[in-house]
Amino acid sequence: MADLSTTLPLTRDSVAQAHKLVRPNVHLTPVLTNRTLTELASTPRDLAGTRWEGRTPAKPVIRLWFKCENMQRIGAFKVRGAFHAIERLKLEPGWLEGGGEEKGVVTHSSGNHAQALALAARENGIKAHIVMPNISMPQKIAATQGYGANVVFSGSTSVEREAVAASIIADTGARLVPPYDHPDIMLGQGTMGLEFQEQVVGLMAGEEKGRFRAEATGKDGDKPGRPGRSKAKPGLDAIMTPCGGGGMLSGVALSCEGTGIRVFGAEPSFQGADDGKRGYESGSRVPVVKTLTVADGLRTPVGEHPWSVIYERRLVAGMFSVSEEEIKAAMRLVLERFKMVVEPSGCVPLAVALFDEEFRSMVEKEAGEDGWDLGLVFSGGNVGADAIGRLFAEEKKD
Amino acid sequence: MADLSTTLPLTRDSVAQAHKLVRPNVHLTPVLTNRTLTELASTPRDLAGTRWEGRTPAKPVIRLWFKCENMQRIGAFKVRGAFHAIERLKLEPGWLEGGGEEKGVVTHSSGNHAQALALAARENGIKAHIVMPNISMPQKIAATQGYGANVVFSGSTSVEREAVAASIIADTGARLVPPYDHPDIMLGQGTMGLEFQEQVVGLMAGEEKGRFRAEATGKDGDKPGRPGRSKAKPGLDAIMTPCGGGGMLSGVALSCEGTGIRVFGAEPSFQGADDGKRGYESGSRVPVVKTLTVADGLRTPVGEHPWSVIYERRLVAGMFSVSEEEIKAAMRLVLERFKMVVEPSGCVPLAVALFDEEFRSMVEKEAGEDGWDLGLVFSGGNVGADAIGRLFAEEKKD
Repeated sequence: MADLSTTLPLTRDSVAQAHKLVRPNVHLTPVLTNRTLTELASTPRDLAGTRWEGRTPAKPVIRLWFKCENMQRIGAFKVRGAFHAIERLKLEPGWLEGGGEEKGVVTHSSGNHAQALALAARENGIKAHIVMPNISMPQKIAATQGYGANVVFSGSTSVEREAVAASIIADTGARLVPPYDHPDIMLGQGTMGLEFQEQVVGLMAGEEKGRFRAEATGKDGDKPGRPGRSKAKPGLDAIMTPCGGGGMLSGVALSCEGTGIRVFGAEPSFQGADDGKRGYESGSRVPVVKTLTVADGLRTPVGEHPWSVIYERRLVAGMFSVSEEEIKAAMRLVLERFKMVVEPSGCVPLAVALFDEEFRSMVEKEAGEDGWDLGLVFSGGNVGADAIGRLFAEEKKD
Repeated sequence: MADLSTTLPLTRDSVAQAHKLVRPNVHLTPVLTNRTLTELASTPRDLAGTRWEGRTPAKPVIRLWFKCENMQRIGAFKVRGAFHAIERLKLEPGWLEGGGEEKGVVTHSSGNHAQALALAARENGIKAHIVMPNISMPQKIAATQGYGANVVFSGSTSVEREAVAASIIADTGARLVPPYDHPDIMLGQGTMGLEFQEQVVGLMAGEEKGRFRAEATGKDGDKPGRPGRSKAKPGLDAIMTPCGGGGMLSGVALSCEGTGIRVFGAEPSFQGADDGKRGYESGSRVPVVKTLTVADGLRTPVGEHPWSVIYERRLVAGMFSVSEEEIKAAMRLVLERFKMVVEPSGCVPLAVALFDEEFRSMVEKEAGEDGWDLGLVFSGGNVGADAIGRLFAEEKKD
């Protein structure tokens, strides 16, 4: 990672700077809509049997837009931060001259960040050392090695992994590239927020003839597919992203600063995975989380740098959390109605929009009949066909 | 179905006429690309263990484009033909005045056509009777009833189904809307071919800022992601669609007539499901097929009207077929690499492009180093999460 003294200030303009570096290296992923999901989001829920039983169901008007980072390189948004980290490293005075490419980079991860860093390093001719628990799935190990990375095994606790990473750094002079807790990672992930804003404005302006046309419908003019009124100013009213370590959420929040677009974070609630929400409510960051939520990309606590943006600068307007069942229900809807493969972590914001009455009543109150154009981030799609089978095998269809 | 005497001639212009009627009722589904799949298609295969073992692998250059009809209303292209059939019926002299809306329409189907017709009828205030085998899956029955159709049960043989449909027609005066063997259905399905052509030209011209940018890559300019040379005239060189009854294939072939775009059909080979290919090679349509291929939308023989376009007018340049294993391998790639849910039938053209050496060596020979921009139709996405699990549960990952 580039030295903190060389990082750009955490502003929207810095996200735009990062975009210049990241854009040539990543896909401009599509923004799509889905009428069935927008209809569901804009229909009051039957609250019988839920934790809101007895309450009057909220009647929000929500038009959904989806940024498909599941179709990103390596199947997740993580390449944005990884490429940005590498580009900033190359700009750090003395790093290249000091043999930085040969010394390389290192991280400890078994998830999307490992593959993202391996890819970004390889395409820049830089060595990558990836510390993975020796219990990692063979496919994940093979995929990471497939990007040319030097995979080093460790025990499965974070202490063991950090010890191995530290010894690699001592031996090689490699730089640590953490998955989220660094300004360069946050700014890199935030580039997705800029694209999302621009793409929705473009789609609304009808500039994009070949796009998925959500409002195409039958005869009756006033379809529930695109409920609410047309607005004076086109664009998103709000964006909600998943929140694990907070790299993406904080980056997207920076990308929206000054635009009037509200930003929300979505977490699993299982076994305390809602550390961001709890921290937001108590006013103090929760530094440790131990959870086995199905949303396996969101098992980490929010990092210090992201926290400074999310909470201390109040650039995130609220945090919401959903149950395991709600996450799986959202994932099933995405598979069966949207025909998209999105990993459980990436379905958490949709679960909030569809199932969380706190969120839904807030939208009803704030947006009224006009409703909101709400952007949701499908953050990744790395879940295999076998895993999909396991996730839904024991469930009954409604 | 409208009387045959009232149908338009089977020409590209008639497809354009159909598009005017169909367009307000359907989604303009996205056209997407995927670098991994394009790379795979443009990489010579290892033929060891295949039926081409010992042959020199073909070296085609293929740039893939996907028309995502899996994201169409009801999850499949079938709504195009159904809406067109209804619109043409409304235009038939005397049909409305004779109480046509109340008499309704009827079909016997347990698949996508049943739901498509039910939807198109409902949105036009027309009664729909759908004859389904009494062994149909409860979800399919519920979905069809959910569109307001009158579901009538029959035995599971085609004789039993046709007898029930005939008795409904005798009782009510309803019109039969067959799934593929009628000019109005063919012209309706062909509208997708027109969109596909236009969208690819638009995407190539870079008019669509917000699109999925397949050529976005790393540093090395000559990426395999978009192999081959740029062309003088932008657009597709060829389109391949699945072929069951041949409604879509013949309609797309009509949409390409006179454009220079070659059209191919793709079938499963299992238990004789490659009736179109066999008929094409023998010069005589195969009228009966009995197969349980996993591509369950393609179990029917090519109909007479489609055959007249596909074979007799030679508007389809060739037919290809693939094994069950190849279809499933293509579907797994689509799920895991493209992050898309496409039913087995919709993965058959991709299986041909990736695995059929006859097709691949033809492309190498015809297209040379320039390669082809090949459009593939993801015809539908109606496969549940449970079914995905069953399809891949017993397989081993490579």
